Amino acid sequence: MDRDLATAAFATSLADFQAVADRVANDAIVTPALPLALPDRKLFLKAECLQPLGSFKIRAAANALAVAPKAELAKGVITASAGNFGQGIALAAKARGLPVHVVVPDTSAKVKIAALQDLGATIETVSFSDWWQVIMTRDAGRPGFFVHPVAELAVIIGNGGIGLEIARQVPDVDTVLVPLGGGGMISGIALALRAAGRVGGRKVRIVACEIESSAPLTAARKAGHPVTVKRGASWIDGIGSTGVLPEMWPLLDQLVDDVVVVSHAQAAQALRILASRAHIVAEGAGAVALAAALHPSFAGQTVVPVISGGNIDVATFARILGGADT
Amino acid sequence: MDRDLATAAFATSLADFQAVADRVANDAIVTPALPLALPDRKLFLKAECLQPLGSFKIRAAANALAVAPKAELAKGVITASAGNFGQGIALAAKARGLPVHVVVPDTSAKVKIAALQDLGATIETVSFSDWWQVIMTRDAGRPGFFVHPVAELAVIIGNGGIGLEIARQVPDVDTVLVPLGGGGMISGIALALRAAGRVGGRKVRIVACEIESSAPLTAARKAGHPVTVKRGASWIDGIGSTGVLPEMWPLLDQLVDDVVVVSHAQAAQALRILASRAHIVAEGAGAVALAAALHPSFAGQTVVPVISGGNIDVATFARILGGADT
Repeated sequence: MDRDLATAAFATSLADFQAVADRVANDAIVTPALPLALPDRKLFLKAECLQPLGSFKIRAAANALAVAPKAELAKGVITASAGNFGQGIALAAKARGLPVHVVVPDTSAKVKIAALQDLGATIETVSFSDWWQVIMTRDAGRPGFFVHPVAELAVIIGNGGIGLEIARQVPDVDTVLVPLGGGGMISGIALALRAAGRVGGRKVRIVACEIESSAPLTAARKAGHPVTVKRGASWIDGIGSTGVLPEMWPLLDQLVDDVVVVSHAQAAQALRILASRAHIVAEGAGAVALAAALHPSFAGQTVVPVISGGNIDVATFARILGGADT
Repeated sequence: MDRDLATAAFATSLADFQAVADRVANDAIVTPALPLALPDRKLFLKAECLQPLGSFKIRAAANALAVAPKAELAKGVITASAGNFGQGIALAAKARGLPVHVVVPDTSAKVKIAALQDLGATIETVSFSDWWQVIMTRDAGRPGFFVHPVAELAVIIGNGGIGLEIARQVPDVDTVLVPLGGGGMISGIALALRAAGRVGGRKVRIVACEIESSAPLTAARKAGHPVTVKRGASWIDGIGSTGVLPEMWPLLDQLVDDVVVVSHAQAAQALRILASRAHIVAEGAGAVALAAALHPSFAGQTVVPVISGGNIDVATFARILGGADT
């Protein structure tokens, strides 16, 4: 499977990514690239937290269902998602009258589970390791059309829309910084920018952002292949798995130029900047991308951190706003 | 002066408003109209809180300085603003190398005063009644080019840009809901929509939004002329003056179709919805516009509340998020 997905992904063309915009126009918005004034760099926040359901994942979810075979969909839709992608699938499926079953890990934010229920999804809560098994095997033990939240060509292509928008909104972009969950977003953005001719001629650097409590891509790059890492406690969910998916590794290995690992203190400070200066509510993963973009090594550049989503527990948000780091 | 301003404002043409977009393109962004899913109406949040400096006022401030006589500007710039407009003037003036003096009332949010200082403005803090005198007389007791935050043709025209964007982004809009501060924003939006032919043929209703602690337009409409009202304590600043400016009354009298007065509980609930479901940080005035748009009387309509800004004290924001109404 890994060779197949990566091979198919590398074979995508600009037309594949351009087709996404029309396909998801009724589900997702073109998010703004919000300028944030800084003394030493130009920074634009790609504010995916403003999407319907508060996350970039509506793009990929809508794209995946739009291109799925209708006969398969009729059996119902299954996915395994910490929340945002599950919500996107649930909303896109609801619009098509399809039942949805979502497997979620018991570490998910309560606000995400409640939102899934509001969208009419059936929820199955399992341990993080059981959930990870479903992700790895694509087998949820029930019939239906399984949509993988990350390692799915339609998902990667759907995410690519973000890259095309950045190329148009910030034509002088030097570096795009993307929080690393499963790798579907960063792969889609990188492939779309490459297809648009923005990586190659004048090279746009693609930087993955990880949180100190779990940095699987950093570990994989060091080892030269995916390895299992410890997943420490964190207020930041949505990123930080126990390992890079084998089928995503060829993509991440070739498309990611660098990785920045962010501390919880840096992420918390970034969350406060996003609220007080950009007036957006970000979830931890989005704050990690801004924190990485503030790294001294990007001084003098035009940088675009992707603020992946805004679904954060109110209590956590209020605590971090009040000055806490964890 | 009142006849002059209103007469000039009513004489504006579509070209006057269209010219604003190019003139402020380096200062302000085209804000998104964010869909908020509701069972009984279509609602799009015109998210001016995403502007640089977190407020719609950058539009009018940049427009006012762009059209001001250069010889006058050379004496320095003076304004009197609770913060957001002052910040806009300070930023636009800084870009032009001009000193700025800002008179602010001692009721202003601390975060706004700090932001003004960061932008290099000289701050003069006075009592609310003394500040109001400056607003009424346009005399700050010092030489310089005075820009009125509300009753200034260039300000009203600058705000009109919001109206043209709404007409393009939400072509089926029925009602635009605007928080009422001095009346400059609602007048600009209404005039621009009228100029664009959107008020007249198929009538777009223009609704002013006030907070229960101070509702000067409601009082003026009842009396048939501006009257002095009590200004009660509130966590919501930026709207709620002690009376409609006489020179703004002819505009407000003719352009505003209706007024909705919102309670603090409704505004607080709207603030929480904006944070948890739209993932934007709004100041109280912006929350008032959403609260008004949720009024049962707008069921079945396409409504656009203007979320005027996002500059709110962190402590106040956290308190309301935590469930408080006041």
